[in-house]
Amino acid sequence: MNELRFNRITGEWVIVASERAKRKHEASEAAKPKEPLPEWKADCPFCPGNEASTPEELFSYREEENNQWKLRVIPNKFPVVSENNDTARTEGFFRKRAASGFHHVIVETPFHNRDIPDMSEPEVFDVVRSYFECVKYLYKNPWIKSVILFRNHGKEAGTSLIHPHSQVVGLAFVPTHIMDLFNTARCYAHENGRCVYCDTIGAEQGAGERVIYENAHFVAFVPYAAKLQYEIQIMPREHRSHFIDIGEESLNALSLALHKVLRALKLALDDPAYNLVLHTAPSYLKNVDYYHWYLEITPRLTIPAGLEMGSGITVNISQPEENAKTLREKVS
Amino acid sequence: MNELRFNRITGEWVIVASERAKRKHEASEAAKPKEPLPEWKADCPFCPGNEASTPEELFSYREEENNQWKLRVIPNKFPVVSENNDTARTEGFFRKRAASGFHHVIVETPFHNRDIPDMSEPEVFDVVRSYFECVKYLYKNPWIKSVILFRNHGKEAGTSLIHPHSQVVGLAFVPTHIMDLFNTARCYAHENGRCVYCDTIGAEQGAGERVIYENAHFVAFVPYAAKLQYEIQIMPREHRSHFIDIGEESLNALSLALHKVLRALKLALDDPAYNLVLHTAPSYLKNVDYYHWYLEITPRLTIPAGLEMGSGITVNISQPEENAKTLREKVS
Repeated sequence: MNELRFNRITGEWVIVASERAKRKHEASEAAKPKEPLPEWKADCPFCPGNEASTPEELFSYREEENNQWKLRVIPNKFPVVSENNDTARTEGFFRKRAASGFHHVIVETPFHNRDIPDMSEPEVFDVVRSYFECVKYLYKNPWIKSVILFRNHGKEAGTSLIHPHSQVVGLAFVPTHIMDLFNTARCYAHENGRCVYCDTIGAEQGAGERVIYENAHFVAFVPYAAKLQYEIQIMPREHRSHFIDIGEESLNALSLALHKVLRALKLALDDPAYNLVLHTAPSYLKNVDYYHWYLEITPRLTIPAGLEMGSGITVNISQPEENAKTLREKVS
Repeated sequence: MNELRFNRITGEWVIVASERAKRKHEASEAAKPKEPLPEWKADCPFCPGNEASTPEELFSYREEENNQWKLRVIPNKFPVVSENNDTARTEGFFRKRAASGFHHVIVETPFHNRDIPDMSEPEVFDVVRSYFECVKYLYKNPWIKSVILFRNHGKEAGTSLIHPHSQVVGLAFVPTHIMDLFNTARCYAHENGRCVYCDTIGAEQGAGERVIYENAHFVAFVPYAAKLQYEIQIMPREHRSHFIDIGEESLNALSLALHKVLRALKLALDDPAYNLVLHTAPSYLKNVDYYHWYLEITPRLTIPAGLEMGSGITVNISQPEENAKTLREKVS
């Protein structure tokens, strides 16, 4: 029996149709064995030696002994937004304005083939620390309203370059979908007097069956109404609206959580494509009682089709409880 | 310069970043030449002779001379919703209910390789007529609130079976995204006293540069704030909230428009994957002055990544005006 589960974060009903995984897939090709990647690639713009093919770096972390970079932050060569704050907009039926903002890239490692699961703990911490610095840097700009930090892993997740990297986009406006998430959280708090994210953490811990990892600061779980197979949320126990209000100890705990979760995902599903997104409050919202920053990881195992495109409904063809069990067994 | 264009239908700002199409794509494979499909395939459940491998048909169109089916409508073997109207929902933080509704499949032709662009005009008319009958059939059911008709063409559009087919889903509820579209249209009418779809048709015809085809009943265009490359809307000039209020003459004109537009798309972009979605009002809304049914075709030329997943923003890496010019030149 297919069921609808209510997703409290998005305010939407998700179809959980695990029987549907049995469909015949004529159109998809057989999985190809993955060729191991080289440590360095001559034509990769993110590999050491090719720095001149990227825009000039904003900052980097370097080895003490030889000043070699370990992690670099650079402007995106093909940004989705332009670095000016032009607020003029046209009038009339067809309306436009400049797409203003910043689009930066974090080259996470000099090694072409060293993705997060294969990094050492200090290396993962550098990645998470760069997330913190990049988001903080963008929020310092008074006309930046929202920041979206994301990481695309694998072709099916829309990445164009394989070398491990994340991206940060600062926008001069708040996208409609993000405003909708805030409104949903605000309505929940209005009705219940509590933060929906805090309540989610409590309820998921109470249920237990969907939790995959936890430490003193974070809980990682497959949410009850996961929109897609193996969706994972990593939520901080401390109620903070802004990621940049995280403390040093919590940043360390986040690094550990991210490392363990991404390693479990790679082991459990043979290195699937995924998107990682950091959700954090718009700049002008100070610490509000209804909104809570978090990380979301969405493996891209199915392709959304006409039903999803047309209605916005998501169809999860798996059981979140089974997904969590599979991942939990791979956490080490 | 990247720009934001305001999409009046969704109420969202779309990033138009046509420079971004120049990015290097290391992760995507070289396009493989497409092998021609056979006219009949032994293991295709939709090919003639394999009818027993599908659920029993709901109705079919048949040849007069030999009673062979030309088009069949069947229940989906792996439906996303279950055929019962169970409205009970659980209480508490984690909430669920049955996913109730119908999920039907229109097998559009007995020929495995005869897609809409290659059909004769009477064959396309049969497809469009079956759309009308399927939607009407579902709306007769008093507990069906919304109907989504869609067609997935090609692997990148999420199809699992290649044989030409469309699908119709009737739901016992109205999805959030569809309610949002209604609210946006209602706000526009509240502010301007007119239907946003009627105004869109007028404005697109006035501008002219994005129109790709028109006849007495329909206008097909790449919208000003197209969310993705080569997005096409086919809108009826007559203001009707429900597709099923279309008249016979208009149904004929729709068939012609669909045929010409899909043929142009196939010619212009070498048979791209796409989703086609029919947007029509929920059952309980009779003919309202603010909502207007229409068809939307979304080619799947890029993969939405973390930015889109996390913020709901869409990034169009092409110019709608250029897309329209390319398509218009292929309309015959």
